Amino acid sequence: MHHAADRLLNACDQRGAPVCVGLDPVLEKIPAAVREGYTGPVDALEVFCYGVLDAVKDVVPAVKPQIACFERYGAAGYAAYERVVAAAAQAGLCVIADAKRGDIGTSSAHYAAGLIAGGDTWRGGDFLTVNSYLGTDGIEPFFNAAQAEGAGLFALVRTSNPGGDALQGLRLEDGRTVAEAVADQVAALGEGGLGERGYSLLGAVVGATKPADAAALRRRMPRQIFLVPGYGAQGGGADDVRACFNPDGAGALITASRSVIYAPVRGCGAWADAVRVAAQTLRDEIAAILA
Amino acid sequence: MHHAADRLLNACDQRGAPVCVGLDPVLEKIPAAVREGYTGPVDALEVFCYGVLDAVKDVVPAVKPQIACFERYGAAGYAAYERVVAAAAQAGLCVIADAKRGDIGTSSAHYAAGLIAGGDTWRGGDFLTVNSYLGTDGIEPFFNAAQAEGAGLFALVRTSNPGGDALQGLRLEDGRTVAEAVADQVAALGEGGLGERGYSLLGAVVGATKPADAAALRRRMPRQIFLVPGYGAQGGGADDVRACFNPDGAGALITASRSVIYAPVRGCGAWADAVRVAAQTLRDEIAAILA
Repeated sequence: MHHAADRLLNACDQRGAPVCVGLDPVLEKIPAAVREGYTGPVDALEVFCYGVLDAVKDVVPAVKPQIACFERYGAAGYAAYERVVAAAAQAGLCVIADAKRGDIGTSSAHYAAGLIAGGDTWRGGDFLTVNSYLGTDGIEPFFNAAQAEGAGLFALVRTSNPGGDALQGLRLEDGRTVAEAVADQVAALGEGGLGERGYSLLGAVVGATKPADAAALRRRMPRQIFLVPGYGAQGGGADDVRACFNPDGAGALITASRSVIYAPVRGCGAWADAVRVAAQTLRDEIAAILA
Repeated sequence: MHHAADRLLNACDQRGAPVCVGLDPVLEKIPAAVREGYTGPVDALEVFCYGVLDAVKDVVPAVKPQIACFERYGAAGYAAYERVVAAAAQAGLCVIADAKRGDIGTSSAHYAAGLIAGGDTWRGGDFLTVNSYLGTDGIEPFFNAAQAEGAGLFALVRTSNPGGDALQGLRLEDGRTVAEAVADQVAALGEGGLGERGYSLLGAVVGATKPADAAALRRRMPRQIFLVPGYGAQGGGADDVRACFNPDGAGALITASRSVIYAPVRGCGAWADAVRVAAQTLRDEIAAILA
């Protein structure tokens, strides 16, 4: 199936809930057994990611690797990122590359060539997160590359961090907030890339910690799949995410990272089992909201 | 000298003008002799960058590698980026890593750890460009890392692309533009990191294609060094950049990329000589404006 939104939505149906596990591997947080089994930090993080992928692949439709966690180790980390993306795709998971790239057109085109199209020995993600601050001509090269490759995008509209308010929540003289103005631009640009299920290949990042904003943004972007971070560790609850869905119960992908991949191990259980159970809990909680 | 702004300003004085050459290596644009001499695209781009560094190192104080041009080739490109940064530092050039990264706090801290602090076998840039859309708590981890490492930042305020207007130029109900609101946040955050010469380690990206905006932003950010792209190929002229400087003639770094690194070769001259001459012209033009 060539349209990324269709692919993602179908995968969500198949797994029973529109949820995504964030891969934010951090050396100090991964199980000691994994950390101590490898001399290089990148090796340990990579093996940890494979363990998480194996634990969640039959439970959730998508994973979201946070490229910053890899890039902090430079080229070696970047190489590990490429292998983790390949492994996730091999496991049948939809991959959302959380890179938040954005630049003027020519440079955006370079990012898109790498992070969406990939190369001879590696592939880009199914989706890529992009930054909206440079305007639509900074997003268009990503959009064109995504369309050509059957991939998709999530543009930052309303982020889950407290400081996002100070800019995204500012009121314009026309009554919209900055985030709403960005939403209108994303909705307009996304019209050119609708799939069979009615959603655009250009989605939007809308944090789970701002339910009132999410409802207003939902109305402005009916054709955008919302990538919703902040569920779990960042404080967003089940009630907060309801507003991110369309009335038909579709149109959002709820992401949890730390609460799943660093799920506390009970007794002498295996860490991967704890991850799997946390992913199942995430899936079941979101499925219950939508039932 | 531990403060990045002092280091950069002193280097500008030493070279006679506050100018920077952008390293945006693109395979189709580099001299055919270089391109055809290597089987792998990354090797050709890397060798081209070394040639540019050698041509400009005695002419300009700083270079700005565009990481997108390297990242499009994945981990192999990233490794070349690291080596080019090391070579630039070795040549005595101030390195501005143009990566425009930005995320919520924890992920920004990971980016900062890599792109500012570097690793065992590689180093980060002297400065890093960062995206402002996530608010100050998305920039603070970069700020803290920069302060600890004696590095600096340039936060995106007003970009040089035409589409930047559609968001950055919007008017808020309090009368400021979005870019001005970001400028106020950058100015406030930057107060905590002033160097001996009165400038903050947190600078601002302000495009050369918006002279009226630049003047207004200059007043709001007296302590920020402006990184000014768009001179030359993007259409900004000598008159446009005047507004980016403080009344004392300091406080801006004028960047040209394509007009220098792809300078046309006259007759049977060497491409590196054309690059050197173009860098000298850039330096002399900006010095003339400030004389």
